[in-house]
Formats: sequence, structure tokens, C-alpha cells
Amino acid sequence: MMRLTCCCSALLLILIPTACQGGNILVFPTEGSHWINMDILLAALHSRGHNISIVRSNTSWYIKENYPNYKTITVQTEKTLDQEFITKAVHELIEFERGAVPLTSFLYMAVGMFDKFIEAHSSVGKFVSAMLDDKELMRDLKDSKFDLVLTDPCWGGGVILAKYLNLPLVYNVRWLIPEEAHFAIAPSPISYIPITGSGNSDKMSFLQRVKNMILHLVTQTQKSLLVTQVYQKICDKYLGPENDFYQLVLDADIWLMRVDFVFDYPRPTMPNAVYMGGFQCKPAKPLPQHLEEFVQSSAEHGVIIMSLGTFIGELPVDIVNEIAAAFAKLPQKVIWRYKGDKPAALGNNTLLIDWMPQNDLLGHSKIKLFVAHGGTNGVQEAIYHGVPVVGLPVFFDQYDNLLRLQVRGAAKILTLATVDKEDNFLKALQEVLTEPSYRTNMQRLSRLHRDQPLTPLDNALFWIEFVMRHKGAPHLKSESYRMPWYSYHSVDVVLFLTGVVLFLLFIIFIFIRCLCTALCKRKVKND
Amino acid sequence: MMRLTCCCSALLLILIPTACQGGNILVFPTEGSHWINMDILLAALHSRGHNISIVRSNTSWYIKENYPNYKTITVQTEKTLDQEFITKAVHELIEFERGAVPLTSFLYMAVGMFDKFIEAHSSVGKFVSAMLDDKELMRDLKDSKFDLVLTDPCWGGGVILAKYLNLPLVYNVRWLIPEEAHFAIAPSPISYIPITGSGNSDKMSFLQRVKNMILHLVTQTQKSLLVTQVYQKICDKYLGPENDFYQLVLDADIWLMRVDFVFDYPRPTMPNAVYMGGFQCKPAKPLPQHLEEFVQSSAEHGVIIMSLGTFIGELPVDIVNEIAAAFAKLPQKVIWRYKGDKPAALGNNTLLIDWMPQNDLLGHSKIKLFVAHGGTNGVQEAIYHGVPVVGLPVFFDQYDNLLRLQVRGAAKILTLATVDKEDNFLKALQEVLTEPSYRTNMQRLSRLHRDQPLTPLDNALFWIEFVMRHKGAPHLKSESYRMPWYSYHSVDVVLFLTGVVLFLLFIIFIFIRCLCTALCKRKVKND
Repeated sequence: MMRLTCCCSALLLILIPTACQGGNILVFPTEGSHWINMDILLAALHSRGHNISIVRSNTSWYIKENYPNYKTITVQTEKTLDQEFITKAVHELIEFERGAVPLTSFLYMAVGMFDKFIEAHSSVGKFVSAMLDDKELMRDLKDSKFDLVLTDPCWGGGVILAKYLNLPLVYNVRWLIPEEAHFAIAPSPISYIPITGSGNSDKMSFLQRVKNMILHLVTQTQKSLLVTQVYQKICDKYLGPENDFYQLVLDADIWLMRVDFVFDYPRPTMPNAVYMGGFQCKPAKPLPQHLEEFVQSSAEHGVIIMSLGTFIGELPVDIVNEIAAAFAKLPQKVIWRYKGDKPAALGNNTLLIDWMPQNDLLGHSKIKLFVAHGGTNGVQEAIYHGVPVVGLPVFFDQYDNLLRLQVRGAAKILTLATVDKEDNFLKALQEVLTEPSYRTNMQRLSRLHRDQPLTPLDNALFWIEFVMRHKGAPHLKSESYRMPWYSYHSVDVVLFLTGVVLFLLFIIFIFIRCLCTALCKRKVKND
Repeated sequence: MMRLTCCCSALLLILIPTACQGGNILVFPTEGSHWINMDILLAALHSRGHNISIVRSNTSWYIKENYPNYKTITVQTEKTLDQEFITKAVHELIEFERGAVPLTSFLYMAVGMFDKFIEAHSSVGKFVSAMLDDKELMRDLKDSKFDLVLTDPCWGGGVILAKYLNLPLVYNVRWLIPEEAHFAIAPSPISYIPITGSGNSDKMSFLQRVKNMILHLVTQTQKSLLVTQVYQKICDKYLGPENDFYQLVLDADIWLMRVDFVFDYPRPTMPNAVYMGGFQCKPAKPLPQHLEEFVQSSAEHGVIIMSLGTFIGELPVDIVNEIAAAFAKLPQKVIWRYKGDKPAALGNNTLLIDWMPQNDLLGHSKIKLFVAHGGTNGVQEAIYHGVPVVGLPVFFDQYDNLLRLQVRGAAKILTLATVDKEDNFLKALQEVLTEPSYRTNMQRLSRLHRDQPLTPLDNALFWIEFVMRHKGAPHLKSESYRMPWYSYHSVDVVLFLTGVVLFLLFIIFIFIRCLCTALCKRKVKND
């Protein structure tokens, strides 16, 4: 196919209707890093002329009170989710993981931390109740004639709000805590679709499939507990008991999935799932002068960048020193996003900074390697720019995200339990830097990811505006969500048909027996 | 959302890489009306600079020997599928349907006509064998360095050819005879996905679900027989017995589905399924002068058009006369695509023609109603132009296609068994002409269908060229196709876990029993 190498590009003109007067969008976001994603989508919607109103709590952690381009609606409530809560959970988890047998950590995440999930969602529940109790606010929202509710259903408030206001519903989604969103919307055979936290890929051994099944049962139990203990109670009180919360969740018009099938394993999907993985990625801008000079000073060796994301303040001191010592032994320059005391073993080649323009660095030609914790944003940016990864996952989906790169030969993962042993970190860095296949594989993923007819962000905007133009997308919602489980799985039909077959066999048996008896009698008579 | 009514359009520029030197595409089409669809796709590929080579039989019915823009590769073989074969089958079916109890016709289609399916596919099998036996031809094909095989897998030859030449594979597909293509590629709960021929929609009663299940079992048996009796034998001989034909079918890179979710019911799908339903539709061109004059002569009443497609030569005379008499009673003008003797009851308002520019007529503002047999092409064109339908289905998927319009309030179906009774046809025409909801609903479907970021044809072209650029699309093929059924359905895992639970229960039971015995003994001793 070298003959097909593109020597020019054709401009394909596509007519997308523009909302001249702008739509009216009500947003119910999820806190923390989820807000960072949502903000990018909202900025793009604003730039297309839509009005954005955001529901937040007065104790909100990431979502501010004032934005130049958005209206905020503040609900007075107790704290929902904050730095302290996350830091405490992370530190507990790191302590556990460092001492744990690998196979048990997924169960610790699933069972040991479940009370934290319930606690977090209960505080969301209080926030939602406070909002729905505020009659004046709800009247104002009804009068505002919104066109749709846009929500991250990791928190269930937006779903309830959309039903209360009787509005079309669009998700910006990856998680329906505690499960990955696909498990709710599409058939998901447990035999090749790994449960998050299992550490499995889509190719599993028998024992991995057993582990996957156990974790699936645990997750389904969690989901059921979470729904009944928190969200169904709110539904019963404010929407009436005829509303099943989980059916409302499934009834969204469009699911804007924050993945694509370059990142994720291929699996069944649904017509109203729209893939916008990597929608936050964009071409690199020039670096600030001091960073550009530092990067250029690396000469032919190039630069390593390291960031463990927004949630993780500090790693344990011994791990930090191991990392610093490993960096010091390399000829590359290193830019490390780091908060805390300067590590004792820090080398001259390493620059510690509070914040870095990650996307612009990843898009710089000198960057050879990205040391990342495996948050979805960072992994997508690494794919977009084609930079191979050494992964240091800490919690949630991070190991599983990085595994998607590792099985494609584009990353190497170290766990917190092994990173500080036997020069593991140094060896991993050297391997990814010197073995060309890591870079080749990552750049292949990058080419696949970028080869789409629409950018993921344009695709997302198209479908949000589609829902506005057509007041929903009911033609894309499958009938399955409205069926009881026994009908959906054809249990009643199979029982009925089995009954019919057994009845027929019984009749035939009786008939043959009568025939035999009659024949025998005749034979006896004849004898 | 009236505020969102579009007052202008934004031009979205999308960069699609162009193949300057053109790709090299080997086409293995299916005969008959399937070729009409394929030809449209090939013409578009040719206009983008690709070279097209088509494998055909010297007895081919629709596929000619010479085309200005395509190269043809002719294989000497017996006849494959022809007008005589189809006409005979259709007449048998019509005779059966007119006398049949409605519930039995689906079984007649499935079981009574199965020998015809086997006969047709056996002749395809001979064609494929003749092709693979021609060593010189196969060497030429190998030397031609094709970039991919494009096939309609309704006939299995293209799949075997692609494997033989070790080339990427793209489908232009709706049927993997005898099943709808989705049933092969994606999970398909029988509880809400109607089997073609069942006459069910996606909302089924209990008895409809029973019928659906029975027909599903029949179809799966047919599939299994067809594969083992025809295609697996060819695989064994030419590719080696380690190649399972059905796994090769599932291993295609991209499935260009000739449906979309305005036409079809929403259902699970897969990442490598690309929807190009209605790719053949285009804006209407002006009519030839004599037709334009006839259409304009209808004044405010408008025009009805009728066509029963390419396959059906003639209906029984009594039905034809009933139709002509009904048309004669209407104030509208009628254009009827009709071959055969002039019906005795023909009115002055009805124009009989051999062939009509169906797309241009459907796009004319004077056309009020389309009397159609329900072939996919006609139904898609009706949706595209928003013209309501009175349906007269004859065989295959036609009833099911029309039902998709009827359940959305955009069509009314008559069966051959009832069309000539009690003025049914006239009443149906009058109902659809006078009840505005038919037109409103069809125009809503038209708006939904046209509101896509890419035209269906551009989408199809993008993905064909994607496969050329990346030499396949393995990242979109799920792992499920490579698993044995018991692993895929987790049967082994469930048995294992059940065994473990039973074993644990047994241990607990034994322990409790020992404990009880010990306690009893101690009690007896104490007593």
C-alpha cells in the first residue's frame, strides 16, 4: 500500500447546521478531574453560541462560583468531595498496595474501599435533595426552558434532574460508578471484556476469566447497593416510586464516551454511544522560553517528562528518592511535575515544576518518554502525540488504562509494590528509551487515533446539537431498557418451549406405551 | 427548541486523505439487485482514483462483461443465479402466500424454500471452486498486489478469496444468508431483535417472542447446514481444514452495513460496523419533459407512484386488475412501473411505464404516495425524500422492511393474501393520502436520516480507504470471534465456580455434622 501514501489532501465540505441564537444547556457535572473534561466540552459549546448553566455546590472543590462564560447555580449543602477525602483514600490504598499480594488488591479496591464510595455518593445524594427541596430554584429551572441536561453520570444527580425537568439527557461519560459505562448500555460478555480493577486484558486465561467473573459479581452487587441506598430513595421521594433509577440512567439520549477503540478493546456497543476519546487533545503550542531552553539543552538525548496527575499530592519518600536516583543516572533531561520537599537523590538533569503544559510538552519532538500514572487524560494525550509511556498506576482505572498501552507494546507498567526494588524503575526507563518498538507501536496508535472523519470534539458537538435539533434521540434507544430481565434473557420463552417439548415427549411416550401394551396383549391373546 | 431553528449553516472542513495514485480493489459481488448497490459504491471508488477489478461468472445475470471504468475477471462456470430461478421461486411463494394462514408463511419461507437456498449457494460454490482451480488466474490475482477484497458476503466466495490471497476484507453487507448480518457480528438478544421473516417489530408480545425464538433456531440450523454443505468443503480443499469458514466470515475488517438506525430498530452493534444505509440516495434531478408534464397535470391532487422492484415481473392478473381499478377511482395521477398486458380496469389517470427515474420522482414535490414492495433500496429512497408508503411485500425481507415504516406511522402494509379483498387497496391509499400523520412521520424520519455529519456514501468511502491506509483494521475486531462458544458464554467459569461453591457448602455441611455429632456425644456423656 505504499502506492497509497497520501501526497495531497482533499477538503471534504460538511454542512453542520449552526445554532445561531444558541441552545440553552443545563449542566450537572461530577467533581474533581471529571470537571476538567467537562469544562473543555463546555468551552467548545459556548464558542458555538450556546448558553451554559452549571449546577454546583457551595462547597465545590473544582467548580468555581464565577466563570466569564458560564452561569453557575449554587446549591447550599455540606461538602461533597474534596482534596482531603481523596488524599486520605489514596494514601490508604498506596499503603495497602505496597504490602499486598497482587491478586488481592483488586478485591481491596472493590470491597475494602466500598464504604468510601457509599460515603461520597451519600453526600451527592444530600446535594441533590437540597437542590430538589429548593422550590424556588426548581421553578426557576423549569421556567428557564433548557434544551437538554448534560451530565457526567458518575454522579447520579443529573439523571434525576433531567427527569424532574422532563428534558432530553446527554452524558459525558466513562463511569457509572462503580462500573464502566458500556456495562450498563451494551451486552458485555465477561469472557473477553475485562472488569476495571481486574488487571485483565481482552485476552484472558481460564483463571483470569474466573477472576473477571468474581469481580463482575462484586461490581453488580455494589451497583445494586449504591442505587438502593442512595439514588432510588431520592427517586421515590421526588419523582414517585414508579420511577426506577437505573432505568432512568439507561434512558439517556446520547452517551458521549470518553474512549475510542484505539484506546479501548473492541467490544459491543449501542447506536446512541458516541466515541469522543481524546476530544481534549490538540496540537502542541510553543513552550514557554525557559522550558524550551531546558528541552533544547538535552541535545540528542531528548527529554523525559513525568506527571502523576492532579489527584496525587505526594508519593512515599522512599519511592520518590528511588525515582530521582534513577533519573539522575540517565543522559536525558527530565521534567518532573512534583509537589513536596526536594528529593535527596535529585540529579542535575532533573527539573522539578509545580505545573507543566503537558499537551505542549508531549507534542514536542524532543520528548522521548512519558512517566505517567495512567489517568485517562494523560494516556489519551500520549496516544495523540505518539509518546511511549512508563506507567506508575496508583488507583481506580489507572492500571487498566496503562495495560491497554502495554498489551499493544507501547508502554511498560511498574507497580508501587515493585518500583523501588532492584533498579526496576531505571531498567524500565532504559528499556522503553532504547527498544524502538515502544515508540513505533505508540506512533501507530497515534496514526490510527488521528485518522477519523471528524475530530472527536466535533463529533461530540454534532451529537449534542443533534439532540437539541430533534428534542432527543429516542430512535437510537433500544427497547431492551424497558424489558424485565426474564423477558430480555428469554427465560420465559425458553421455559415455555422446554415445557412444550417435554409435554410432546410425554404424549409420545404414553402413546408408545399404550401401543406396546396393546401389542403385547394381542400377542398374548394370539399365543 | 424553535430558538435553535437554523438560520445559517457552518461549513465544517474535514481533511480526508486522498489516494492520489489510487488503491487496487478486488471485488467479489453478489448477483441480482445486490449488484445495483455494489455498482454505486464502485463508481464512487473509481471517481476517487481507485482501480476496480470484478470477479464474475461467464453466465452472470446482472454483472456485464465490459464496463468503461472497471476491469472484469470472468470465470467459466455453470449458471449461478438468473431471472428464471428467481421468477419461479417468487411465483411459488405468491401462490403459497395467497392461500396461507399468516402464521405459516414464515415457516414456508424458512423451511419450504430452503432447498432453493442450498441450490443457489451450491452453484456459487462451483463458481468459487472453478475460480480457485484456475492456477493461472490465481497467480495473476496474487501478482496484482490488491489492497483489499470488497465483497457482499451474501455469497461466501469473497471471504474465501480474501483468505486465499491474504488480503484485508471489507463487506458491503446486509445479509449473511440466511441471517441478517448483525446476528453474526454482534450480540443479538432474541427478545427484542426480530428475526427477518417473523413479521415482528422490536416490541413483541410473549407469543411473538416464542415465534421469534423458533425462527431463530430454524435460521441457525439453516446457517449451519449451508456452511457445512457448501462453504466449509471449499475451505477444507483450498485453504486447509484448520480454517473454519464461519470464523473467516467474522474476521472481516470493516462491515459496511446497508442500514442505519432511522431505518432499523436500535440494537447492539460492533466497532467495525459502519452504517451506510441510504448511501445510494441523492437529491432529485429534473424529470424528463413528458413525465414532468404528466406530473404537473395532476394539479393540486398530486401523484402516486408504484413500483414493485426489479425482481418481480408480474403479479397475478386478478391482483393487477384490483390495483388498476383502485387507482382509477382516485383524483390523483398515477405512474406505475409495470411490465405485462395492460390491465382491463386501467383508468385514464394512470400511466404505465417500463422503467422510471424512481429517485427523481420521489424527490418531486408533487409526489404524495409511493406504492412499494419493500426492497431496501426503495424504502431507503422513500425515507430520504420523506414520501409515505403503501406497502405490497412479496418475499424475503420486504414485509420486515415495510414494518419498520409502519410501526413509525409512515406506511401501511397490505399482504398479497388480502390486497384484492373488500376494497382494501383503495382504502389503504385513501387513508395514507388523507391522514396527515403518515406524511409528517415520514418527513420526521427523513430529517433524522439526513442529519448526519458525513453522508453515508462518504462514510463508506472513508472506511474503505482507512483499511487501505492501515492495511486492515485489526484494532476494531473483537476477541470474541476467536473464542470457543463455552468460553465466550463463560460456561466453563460458571461450572467451575458452582463446583467451588458446592464443595465449600459440602465442607461446611460435613463440619457442622461433625460438630453436631461431637456435641451430641458430649451431651450424652454429660447426661
